[in-house]
Amino acid sequence: MNPSVIMSARDLEFLLYDWLDVEALTGRERFADHSRETFDQVLRLSQDLATTYFAPHNRENDLHEPTFDGERVTVIPAVGKALRAFADAGMIGAAMDYEIGGMQLPHAVYTACMSWFHAANVGTAAYVLLTTGNANLLAAHGSPEQLDAYVRPMLEGRNFGTMALSEPQAGSSLADITTRAVPAADGSYRVFGHKMWISGGDHELSENIVHLVLARIPGAPEGTRGISLFIVPKFLPDAEGRPTVRNDVVLAGINHKMGWRGTVNTAPVFGDGHFTPGGEPGAVGYLVGEPNQGLAQMFTMMNEARIGVGLASAALGYTGYLKSLDYARSRPQGRPVTARGGAQVPLIEHPDVRRMLLAQKSYAEGAVALALYCGKLVDEHRTAATESERARAATLLRILTPIAKSWPSQWCLAANDLAIQIHGGAGYTRDYDVEQHYRDNRLNPIHEGTHGIQSLDLLGRQVTLDNGAALVALVETMTATIAAARATDDAELAEFAAALEAAATRLTATTAGLWRDGDAAAALANSAVYLEAFGHVVLAWIWLEQAVTAHGAPAVDGHRRDRTAFLRGKRLAARYFFRWELPRTAPQFDLLDSADRTTMDLDEAWF
Amino acid sequence: MNPSVIMSARDLEFLLYDWLDVEALTGRERFADHSRETFDQVLRLSQDLATTYFAPHNRENDLHEPTFDGERVTVIPAVGKALRAFADAGMIGAAMDYEIGGMQLPHAVYTACMSWFHAANVGTAAYVLLTTGNANLLAAHGSPEQLDAYVRPMLEGRNFGTMALSEPQAGSSLADITTRAVPAADGSYRVFGHKMWISGGDHELSENIVHLVLARIPGAPEGTRGISLFIVPKFLPDAEGRPTVRNDVVLAGINHKMGWRGTVNTAPVFGDGHFTPGGEPGAVGYLVGEPNQGLAQMFTMMNEARIGVGLASAALGYTGYLKSLDYARSRPQGRPVTARGGAQVPLIEHPDVRRMLLAQKSYAEGAVALALYCGKLVDEHRTAATESERARAATLLRILTPIAKSWPSQWCLAANDLAIQIHGGAGYTRDYDVEQHYRDNRLNPIHEGTHGIQSLDLLGRQVTLDNGAALVALVETMTATIAAARATDDAELAEFAAALEAAATRLTATTAGLWRDGDAAAALANSAVYLEAFGHVVLAWIWLEQAVTAHGAPAVDGHRRDRTAFLRGKRLAARYFFRWELPRTAPQFDLLDSADRTTMDLDEAWF
Repeated sequence: MNPSVIMSARDLEFLLYDWLDVEALTGRERFADHSRETFDQVLRLSQDLATTYFAPHNRENDLHEPTFDGERVTVIPAVGKALRAFADAGMIGAAMDYEIGGMQLPHAVYTACMSWFHAANVGTAAYVLLTTGNANLLAAHGSPEQLDAYVRPMLEGRNFGTMALSEPQAGSSLADITTRAVPAADGSYRVFGHKMWISGGDHELSENIVHLVLARIPGAPEGTRGISLFIVPKFLPDAEGRPTVRNDVVLAGINHKMGWRGTVNTAPVFGDGHFTPGGEPGAVGYLVGEPNQGLAQMFTMMNEARIGVGLASAALGYTGYLKSLDYARSRPQGRPVTARGGAQVPLIEHPDVRRMLLAQKSYAEGAVALALYCGKLVDEHRTAATESERARAATLLRILTPIAKSWPSQWCLAANDLAIQIHGGAGYTRDYDVEQHYRDNRLNPIHEGTHGIQSLDLLGRQVTLDNGAALVALVETMTATIAAARATDDAELAEFAAALEAAATRLTATTAGLWRDGDAAAALANSAVYLEAFGHVVLAWIWLEQAVTAHGAPAVDGHRRDRTAFLRGKRLAARYFFRWELPRTAPQFDLLDSADRTTMDLDEAWF
Repeated sequence: MNPSVIMSARDLEFLLYDWLDVEALTGRERFADHSRETFDQVLRLSQDLATTYFAPHNRENDLHEPTFDGERVTVIPAVGKALRAFADAGMIGAAMDYEIGGMQLPHAVYTACMSWFHAANVGTAAYVLLTTGNANLLAAHGSPEQLDAYVRPMLEGRNFGTMALSEPQAGSSLADITTRAVPAADGSYRVFGHKMWISGGDHELSENIVHLVLARIPGAPEGTRGISLFIVPKFLPDAEGRPTVRNDVVLAGINHKMGWRGTVNTAPVFGDGHFTPGGEPGAVGYLVGEPNQGLAQMFTMMNEARIGVGLASAALGYTGYLKSLDYARSRPQGRPVTARGGAQVPLIEHPDVRRMLLAQKSYAEGAVALALYCGKLVDEHRTAATESERARAATLLRILTPIAKSWPSQWCLAANDLAIQIHGGAGYTRDYDVEQHYRDNRLNPIHEGTHGIQSLDLLGRQVTLDNGAALVALVETMTATIAAARATDDAELAEFAAALEAAATRLTATTAGLWRDGDAAAALANSAVYLEAFGHVVLAWIWLEQAVTAHGAPAVDGHRRDRTAFLRGKRLAARYFFRWELPRTAPQFDLLDSADRTTMDLDEAWF
């Protein structure tokens, strides 16, 4: 496959260098060994690995999903080969600390790298996402011994990770998990319980699998305050320290999904007596950190996973856009409405096809840009010179996380829908990639916290904490962009700036209005609408950022490439977003301001 | 499967009897033999057939799609069994004339019947849709001999039909078809060419397959004015008149689709020399009516098929709604945001889940209502007492057809998306029906004229013909509903009436504004937005109609059933539509009024 229909190297360069100025990060101690050259190398490496090892088996992942024969999970060989190539290149620890074997690349650059892999093959890339999230959690909360035993092998690709939260009776509701962890004499625990929806929960792709399991220690407080986090490896060490002793983790079964089939999704059972490695019943588990801190610890991984899901969704949207663009340029069909005869013209000449391309471009490029921005915030948080800079980065990252997760999940799925539509009947067949991208992307509004959960997090928590400081910080950031747009003296940018200013003002007022009475039930009733309106305002800001950058960017880049058309494309997509998309928020704010109670004031018998 | 999660018999009764008063049709000569009892019987028969014969193999259709071994297409046996039961019950000709073997039921009632079959199993029901469309076309345009030879066997289920329009190089662009039909000495034709996307194009479900093929006779005018319509049967009669002689129609292959897999989709080749039944090259075809009238004739079937596609989409949306409602009532998950502990509550208690249920209810019930309304227009057109009534019915049917096709395709797909979301991870697995409904429904914005094609038909043709008489007629109809709403003295209905009045006024003004300069390219550039805004205004009207009917309807129906909750549900869904949905049109009208040229004023190199 031609990499030009997987991701846009040109756009990633624009976003990283022209917009986010990641080169400046090399002035900070953490990144002092790096340079634009090393960034370019790893970006190029990612493009090559994604093209050579990931893209070729994307459809095979879909056609030959993992199987489970009651004992073993079988995954097509190409997945293991791709992941080995990825790990061998040092990519698993690319953004992690030197001291645990990482490369200490900026997270922004690593995010751009990962966009290649998600776009090429989201099913295979998910094993990476789970493993790096796992490693980062343990790096933050694990003991030095746990780091040595589990994390270092992860960076070498010998251990893969899972996050084992959900249970059959408790999906979104983590307060209701019932998995138990009973202290054992040797200081470890014995874990008993059923988990559900666990991606990567069994396979033979790695020497070992590190399950991070949420469970309750007997006597723990009720609800989420009584949840602890445990490492439960698939294999325990034998006398020589090699992971060969099977722990008591087996599968009740695997799930058969609409898409994203390359990633095995499992229902694991802990401690049902299938194996007795500890000489007594129960899966052997090791507490991470202190008891009852499990949920907070897991959110280290969860927040990273949420942004990762947003990136995966954005990457799927992006590759679908590039493929439908390619199709629209090459497929002749119909004529302009004013034509009298003549040859058929390429699809791209029809305004409605251009609409569908522009919508995709604005969704996919906007979503990738937002993901990179969040990556940069991670870097700023990590390397801030002052405490206030660090706090600001953390605050912005927190409030943007539900948007970075939910907005691409919604709109890059919409992008994939449009990619199919441009292909016509062909797009509905399994002969074209866009059909699969659409099915793969449909998972994203569900896992790692549904759309509804994200909306409750945003409106119920992020915008209310610290008297709303996060929203103030976000609007200040937007205000700086608005000022920069006005400073260009470009009339259209000033028009966009005015629209964003009005939308941001409205967002602040609506937020305050929702919480005026302090009635949480009423405030949160329409939280999904709030999430969507908020997301569109954020993306309008991201598009103004890009338009301002494109305005000031040199038309010839470092590679002496003429970028005039590319930069005009950025302006065009911004124009589309401001004229076609941002106005969607007006009726949403109206609805929120009206404190509509349609969903509250009803009797369930009326359905 | 419980029929209560396939379709709502209660809602169909409300729509047919309380709203559309189809019982009054029995006063017209065509329907004089019928009564509410016969209508109820055929509705109940449809429910039973759909539940017993169609629903049970819906998933099997998906898991075991038709196969083609190079010679024969194999379809799972349950499809043939269901279709035989359907035909044996006389359902194929249920709405057709007595004189060709039909039951002469009102089309409105037949539409309600068909909603059961589409909801139960859209893959199997499609063979019916194609066959009845085929039969109706031939009933309108075929010779008496063609009726005897092809249509009567269709009503008996011995012949199935196809519509063979698209070609590999000409999907939406029918002006570009190249299939040739050469006159033969015996008055028949020899047909040569490749078709594409032909549903039901080969199988062994029926004794014979009647392809209705668009082709050009040598010397015919260019473009769509030179297209003629031919009957090309799969089998020709032998000496005893039995269809055993294979005509020269073979398959180049079959298409493998994302969904709707039960209906085989084929690429047939006519006259490639595989068989030579006419003793000379070419597939034997018979002209329907006069030469060069093919496109107009085909639109008899196409318009019916478009409304049929809208109904199928609506039915899929409806069954997804009922299944997610069932799930939401029975699945405990989480607690109200203000709860402190306590047991988990059913999903339906969460406002955001109610939002997703209400949206589905408003989309699916609204779309089915629109389809039934169109069915009633067919009946009024057929049995009108005066020429002006007949003309009015024809006009309304014409302008509503692109909406009846496109609106359900868009919004009942959105409904299926919400049905998945309510199920959470479960909805993304193949263990739950909603996963399949979503994939099945994704076809509907593509076939029988894409969304873009519908928008060009609506804005480029239907609202401009006869100086815009159709839009005037439609708005007059809406005005009558508005008056009826005001006459109830119900404050909320008056509020809805005012909103619809404003929207209809805006629709008229925007339409006039788009055509003010007579610049077709500019007027049509944003036609998709026009289609969507128009659709939401129509559905607001449909919801006001239902709300007014519910207001005046007795709370106890003919079966002495308490309908209070049901009628309140109609008001609730109307409220949802007026508060949450209709306001979406404001920014759409703003965009249209601004004559936005974003999609026109661009260079393709900017993408």
